[in-house]
Amino acid sequence: MSTLAHIDRLTLIGTGLIGGSLALGLKQAGFVGEIVGCGRRGSQLQRALELGVIDRSEPDPAAAVAGAGLVVVCVPVLAMPAIFAAIAPAMRPDAVLTDVGSTKQSVIDAAQQAFGELPAGFVPGHPIAGTEHSGVEAAFATLYQQRLSILTPTPASSESAIATVQAMWQACGARVAVLDAEHHDDVLAATSHLPHVLAFALVDLLASRADHDEVFAYAAGGFRDFTRIASSSPDMWRDIASANRHALTQNLDALIERLQGLRAAIAVDDRRTVHACFSRAKQARDNYVDLVEEVQT
Amino acid sequence: MSTLAHIDRLTLIGTGLIGGSLALGLKQAGFVGEIVGCGRRGSQLQRALELGVIDRSEPDPAAAVAGAGLVVVCVPVLAMPAIFAAIAPAMRPDAVLTDVGSTKQSVIDAAQQAFGELPAGFVPGHPIAGTEHSGVEAAFATLYQQRLSILTPTPASSESAIATVQAMWQACGARVAVLDAEHHDDVLAATSHLPHVLAFALVDLLASRADHDEVFAYAAGGFRDFTRIASSSPDMWRDIASANRHALTQNLDALIERLQGLRAAIAVDDRRTVHACFSRAKQARDNYVDLVEEVQT
Repeated sequence: MSTLAHIDRLTLIGTGLIGGSLALGLKQAGFVGEIVGCGRRGSQLQRALELGVIDRSEPDPAAAVAGAGLVVVCVPVLAMPAIFAAIAPAMRPDAVLTDVGSTKQSVIDAAQQAFGELPAGFVPGHPIAGTEHSGVEAAFATLYQQRLSILTPTPASSESAIATVQAMWQACGARVAVLDAEHHDDVLAATSHLPHVLAFALVDLLASRADHDEVFAYAAGGFRDFTRIASSSPDMWRDIASANRHALTQNLDALIERLQGLRAAIAVDDRRTVHACFSRAKQARDNYVDLVEEVQT
Repeated sequence: MSTLAHIDRLTLIGTGLIGGSLALGLKQAGFVGEIVGCGRRGSQLQRALELGVIDRSEPDPAAAVAGAGLVVVCVPVLAMPAIFAAIAPAMRPDAVLTDVGSTKQSVIDAAQQAFGELPAGFVPGHPIAGTEHSGVEAAFATLYQQRLSILTPTPASSESAIATVQAMWQACGARVAVLDAEHHDDVLAATSHLPHVLAFALVDLLASRADHDEVFAYAAGGFRDFTRIASSSPDMWRDIASANRHALTQNLDALIERLQGLRAAIAVDDRRTVHACFSRAKQARDNYVDLVEEVQT
């Protein structure tokens, strides 16, 4: 079932995995007329055009947003201030603006800075989806199906702008949840940013061993899954770690403390404490999987 | 292509995922005549019989090993001392004995204790395979195909016993590597035991939050993969953490130190250090995946 086109012209700033998949999903749903793509790297933009992800390329952000009813910014979070500054004077006054940044308070701060005051058309967003691959070649139309997209409207966000951004994600098959930006940043620090930092730290530790060849040769399937996210983009994750460093360091402290407690229990062979921790974790993880499967079926 | 039967009677002590999959693989390969199954839980043993994983059940370990040319012990590592003590007086003098324990020095110590001196027929082993599921219902014949099985022979292990255990794993489609027991324990602490402890600790931390419902509701696919191993058996992993606590605490200390360094860099927004760590990790993880794919094709 295709949705009627709501938006004549959508401008996509950043045409990598996340932006490219959004464009493909929206085209498939008939949600947009024209998609204008804008990006820093000419080769990526050219490839997006060849793959049919965008209809027209425009390297200059201000020129790209001219006449667009909906602007979606899909760049690493630390690149957002410069993009907002470039597009602020060029946007249609009634345009809706959203983003896909993994941290939300930093994006809101950047918009405040660039626009002077938060625009009514601005609705920060964050789709909880992705793969460890990056770039437009990795984009696919169904990335957001059955996934969650979180919106963190500001006090200035208008009801109609919120409705447009919500409809956009629903057109791609996503469910939409609304969350306070600060709570979003804390929850995502725990469930996404912290695991990424852990996976990067673990693989980096193993790679630094003198016997790293053997270590990787003897690693099992569990290791492959556990470290999948360590193949994610270092640029993107450096930005996220920086932009959300307050919540991330708090979550890292809590985890380090828990690891130290577990380490102490293992060292004195306190099997009861170790077993209790493992059991609680298994129970919570099994419940989580049941929950996910319930939502997806 | 089926291998000729080498072993008239094989006794399997412990018929869960690991032992059950071994039995199914060996039957499919025509490597064994009769498989006698022994286990602590009658229901599990009965189910193994019904599923055709074993040909005969014998709850008493000493009775089970009588007349067997090959005995494979597939119980959690802390249960091995009692099993070895029970079977030591009952085994055929020329029988080959191996195990599948995830830690090797503790198993060797247990055998030394039970047998007085290490038997020539004893060849400790560890297949690097498994899933997060446990029990005979989860067993399947192809679990070991293209996987690695590590043998850690003792100075007393005979060449012919090593060759028998090697042939057993190869019959299931596994590759075989030989490693020193101490080095095995250190490498596996890093690549398997440490990731399991991390995954358990992370999920336990998140489950302890007041907003744990939201936390799990907003967790993405990366989280599901990252924490898959936290659904593993708490009993089995308590045993492993205990049996390999020396190497595990050393590896935990190294990781905690690295996390503290990364935490400090994130706190002062030292993006260069953070990016360098993430980049090294991505490079190492991508190389590892290439290596795995090379081996499997």
